[in-house]
Amino acid sequence: MSVTFAQGFKAAGVVAGISTHEGKRDLAIVVNEGPLDAAAGVFTPNRFCAAPVQWSRIAIQDGHLKGIVVNSGGANACTGQAGYEQSSQTAHELARMAHCEDTDIAVASTGLIGELLPLDHVLHGVHDAYEAMEEDAEAGDNAAHAIMTTDTKPKTVEIQGSGYRVGGMVKGSGMIAPQLATMICILTTDAVVTPKQAHDAVCRGTQTSFNRIDVDGCMSTNDTVILMASGASGVTPDIEEFKDSVAQACASLAHQIVGDGEGSSHDVDMTVIGASDEQAALACARAVASSNLMKCAIAGNDPNWGRVVSSIGTVPESIAPYDPNQVTVDINGVRVCDGGKPGQDRSLVDMTPRHVDIVINLHAGESQGTIWTDDLTHEYVRINSDYES
Amino acid sequence: MSVTFAQGFKAAGVVAGISTHEGKRDLAIVVNEGPLDAAAGVFTPNRFCAAPVQWSRIAIQDGHLKGIVVNSGGANACTGQAGYEQSSQTAHELARMAHCEDTDIAVASTGLIGELLPLDHVLHGVHDAYEAMEEDAEAGDNAAHAIMTTDTKPKTVEIQGSGYRVGGMVKGSGMIAPQLATMICILTTDAVVTPKQAHDAVCRGTQTSFNRIDVDGCMSTNDTVILMASGASGVTPDIEEFKDSVAQACASLAHQIVGDGEGSSHDVDMTVIGASDEQAALACARAVASSNLMKCAIAGNDPNWGRVVSSIGTVPESIAPYDPNQVTVDINGVRVCDGGKPGQDRSLVDMTPRHVDIVINLHAGESQGTIWTDDLTHEYVRINSDYES
Repeated sequence: MSVTFAQGFKAAGVVAGISTHEGKRDLAIVVNEGPLDAAAGVFTPNRFCAAPVQWSRIAIQDGHLKGIVVNSGGANACTGQAGYEQSSQTAHELARMAHCEDTDIAVASTGLIGELLPLDHVLHGVHDAYEAMEEDAEAGDNAAHAIMTTDTKPKTVEIQGSGYRVGGMVKGSGMIAPQLATMICILTTDAVVTPKQAHDAVCRGTQTSFNRIDVDGCMSTNDTVILMASGASGVTPDIEEFKDSVAQACASLAHQIVGDGEGSSHDVDMTVIGASDEQAALACARAVASSNLMKCAIAGNDPNWGRVVSSIGTVPESIAPYDPNQVTVDINGVRVCDGGKPGQDRSLVDMTPRHVDIVINLHAGESQGTIWTDDLTHEYVRINSDYES
Repeated sequence: MSVTFAQGFKAAGVVAGISTHEGKRDLAIVVNEGPLDAAAGVFTPNRFCAAPVQWSRIAIQDGHLKGIVVNSGGANACTGQAGYEQSSQTAHELARMAHCEDTDIAVASTGLIGELLPLDHVLHGVHDAYEAMEEDAEAGDNAAHAIMTTDTKPKTVEIQGSGYRVGGMVKGSGMIAPQLATMICILTTDAVVTPKQAHDAVCRGTQTSFNRIDVDGCMSTNDTVILMASGASGVTPDIEEFKDSVAQACASLAHQIVGDGEGSSHDVDMTVIGASDEQAALACARAVASSNLMKCAIAGNDPNWGRVVSSIGTVPESIAPYDPNQVTVDINGVRVCDGGKPGQDRSLVDMTPRHVDIVINLHAGESQGTIWTDDLTHEYVRINSDYES
């Protein structure tokens, strides 16, 4: 279903010959058939942001988009002026076929950094995709497949609101966990919303989902989250409910990314409670979630609370006030650290389930926050030594 | 040679039965026979600092130490009041034999967090070590062996100054690279220096060595660097030369740590030049050095400059001003990125040597800085999934 779950959208995913994996779908388009064309986006803050990000930031500035082209097989990042022209020509090709302005089309790319795209393949792909696009579930699925790189499966979401729908697809896997993986998320809705409302929804949705994945989410050269609204349901939603729907869609997709962590064997919810404020909770959760030692321990089914507390010990007191002698750590429900000292026997912890819950209580306030991450396995290293990105 | 290279020091490394590896030397002592007993230390800023760190901070406050006990096989961290008493009793045992105050003895521990030490083994070990201690090279080597944990080899240094000597040993391996590994460094000198001069020397030495290893050096619960001065040479050194000697000793030991990175297959010098100031250079070098993606690429012999620039792209402009379109990256002498775009063909880079030189020029000033790191291999994951620390 994916992006075609919401009414008013057509999509396609085609084999354009950009990817080195022969026969892999590697180019997707999503076209908003209206009646509205409100849109909003959030992009990487990376200072080496890719050409398609530079293009799309400008395209979306007026709050309107007719469609988007996403390719895998090449990031078109660090490619200078020539790369920027490739993005603009890609947009132009879809604009030409969809009878709109070039700046009504966004572009997103993912793959190897530092190489230009095979532009003729991209342009042919856009043409083929426009010819092939449909509003059915299969078309949405094809699009979700076309944006995958090291993902092991497509990731899609469908949220039914009160008379409106939100659909979406995302690309990204465990590389995100440490840093710098590209995450591309396309959301669609048939709700009647303004560009400003779309913007608020996508900002809040991103904040409580993709920005909660491990430590450095959203810092690749190409990260892109775009929401397009067709208004095809005719329903003007309660705006808080709408924002919740978008946040729910983002959270589902973010969880799917963690679940598809490259070579990961555990998903981890790292929750800090009893914090003085939410930022303190998130800073501590991120400190633990970003520790390679902790990630290796989890891969080895070791409920190593020593690595948990020594990680939160690196967070400055000015950011997260707490007394180390008050801190407790529960791993999968067992209080392995109590008051900064050993608690129940760590052998009581069952680490065999894929899902691991780590709850740290700072006993310093009422706030809490969760970061989602995965473990660090041999397989992760294999994938990322072999894959050029 | 190690710590016994400097005159006026006796050392021993004995099998105390603390480590689970039967027959491994696991307790070292270093005793200053004078005539002076100036000393200085630098300790982890981790808020969950271990009992021996708490003890030694107090012991060294007056600038004097008679000796130190170091054990592997247990960190005595997150062990509460009972752990603190173990450190104080350990100090007391050596003080009793050496006829000094308890607070003239420092203690350092490394190993698993969250468990008390087998105190009777420790105390017997101190007794045996005191009986066995010698001032010869073998004694220094035994001590260097006794402080090892996942280290694959002992790490020692000998620096000959103008009429004085600096010796040292360190424990620590690649775990330091990501975060939280324990690093314990004991330096000795027979130069005639004051506690203040020893303090200045050890601070500067640490700043330009152990604090330049990857991103989060010196943040475990147990990190300890101690310098003891016996004055046995009778030589009052030029103080700048003395600080240089200590810095040189620290740099050698830090390089040995990186060279012994757990399961690493490459050492990497990550150098940023053309920075607006040294902090900007180090911030960018650390951003790259801490990227798991970059470390995996190096393990796979992939000169992946895309991962270099996308990492420095995460450093805020307020910290490191530069223009992405001016940045160059040289890997092992080949300019693979020129002006933010592809430069020479990456296939020209020879990645087979163990040592890898990455030089990033920001073209934003005259300052520079280097961070030393290693790569991320299967072997690293294996070691850190299996080892409980």
